[in-house]
Amino acid sequence: MPAIIVRQGLVSEGERAIPEEVPVAFSYSGSTHAVMMATPDDLEDFAVGFSLTEGIVRSAVEIEAVDVVEAGNGLDLQIVLRQANAEALSARRRQMAGPVGCGMCGIESIDQAMRVVPSVSAADLVLSLEDVTTATSALQDQQRLNRRTRAVHGAGFYLPGQGMVAVREDVGRHNALDKLIGAIALGGWQASAGAIVVTSRLSVEMVQKAAIAGSPVLIAISAPTTLAVRTASEAGMTLVAIARDEDCEVFTRPDRLNLKGISDVA
Amino acid sequence: MPAIIVRQGLVSEGERAIPEEVPVAFSYSGSTHAVMMATPDDLEDFAVGFSLTEGIVRSAVEIEAVDVVEAGNGLDLQIVLRQANAEALSARRRQMAGPVGCGMCGIESIDQAMRVVPSVSAADLVLSLEDVTTATSALQDQQRLNRRTRAVHGAGFYLPGQGMVAVREDVGRHNALDKLIGAIALGGWQASAGAIVVTSRLSVEMVQKAAIAGSPVLIAISAPTTLAVRTASEAGMTLVAIARDEDCEVFTRPDRLNLKGISDVA
Repeated sequence: MPAIIVRQGLVSEGERAIPEEVPVAFSYSGSTHAVMMATPDDLEDFAVGFSLTEGIVRSAVEIEAVDVVEAGNGLDLQIVLRQANAEALSARRRQMAGPVGCGMCGIESIDQAMRVVPSVSAADLVLSLEDVTTATSALQDQQRLNRRTRAVHGAGFYLPGQGMVAVREDVGRHNALDKLIGAIALGGWQASAGAIVVTSRLSVEMVQKAAIAGSPVLIAISAPTTLAVRTASEAGMTLVAIARDEDCEVFTRPDRLNLKGISDVA
Repeated sequence: MPAIIVRQGLVSEGERAIPEEVPVAFSYSGSTHAVMMATPDDLEDFAVGFSLTEGIVRSAVEIEAVDVVEAGNGLDLQIVLRQANAEALSARRRQMAGPVGCGMCGIESIDQAMRVVPSVSAADLVLSLEDVTTATSALQDQQRLNRRTRAVHGAGFYLPGQGMVAVREDVGRHNALDKLIGAIALGGWQASAGAIVVTSRLSVEMVQKAAIAGSPVLIAISAPTTLAVRTASEAGMTLVAIARDEDCEVFTRPDRLNLKGISDVA
């Protein structure tokens, strides 16, 4: 994109790489469920992840096909559910409050917003501090779009012993996480065996989505909100945040982090 | 919030200041329009700004009262419209696609998502490069909550000659901007006389909101998306982004920036 660049007291005309953003519609059985502004990459992952975190399907196998169709100024993700799921969705839509998108908008009551999340407390994953450091630096290294634009969020899935197995990016942090959750499902990985790592702040919706995906550990480079911490605690999820370089802060379930070998000053 | 802090190879128990986040409902005539996760500060500004950017009112004077009511796990903003507006809203709700929140979710078609924004092209504001630098550093200086938490977005209103006259903060960037737009309206300032400055990335919804508020210049510390640039161009808005220290990049309508006095290398 052309831009006038002011740098160190000099003005020049130049080009700046900035991320694409297009309206992406999610349609089920030909009827639009929600529209979101998103980066037009990894759209099949996005369709599957969104369908999972919105509770439209419980497993990726319930989705028969995803067709990406150009639609005027945007893209339409036409999601075909298996027959039984399509009928269930159609029945449920008649009583739904509305499309929910980030997990919040469209929700019409405070109680709905505070939805109960699945517990991940049984998962017995244990990470070392080195895993945390490796995961956050691998996420940043593998953000191809962000390297060019410095303006998109990333979400990655880290498996101890295997490293960062999937990274997805988007201008929206909720979208990046939905894309990753779709990629985990389509890649056949068990979300309970690893950690989800995100570049963004952790608001409550991010914890809700990770819990629905079944991830017992959520690591963020940025900080959480109070409600995100309370929700992670209720879900039995380990929440590691402000994870930069070798440092981090653990807000819930520190038993999944092996802190042996580092000095204790408490 | 208590946290286990790992820093420079040492582990300790400590306290970390993190931002509050609560579900905030917007109710008109007793009926809930939308629920958003937000920082529970400046709620009257939030109610007014949201009502403006969602197109529920055209001016703050159409709002008779805002009552903030504790409601279970969240807060209910009970917004009382003047009689004529209440009747118009009630008629319009019957044909609305749904609550829209960030300006996107709840929207059921791609065409709706690409809503036409008001033109701000007539505004004859001209800023110096020093105004841009002063505005971005003043915004960061005046973010009280962010100084403690390093985890919230800010939006400020800068008037040349008067400086940064209002700053609002929130865990959500859309919310911070809605709060600021409410503060501008309640403070009696003319949005067309100044620049809106935000800490966050500029996705299209941020440009749409600023255009609805009537601000001819939008300055962001972070980067824009392609669609944000195109929308600013259509609205005749000057979009300055990646504004850090003395540097910045101008994507649209550079005629509102006085670049005289700095060297031209183009």
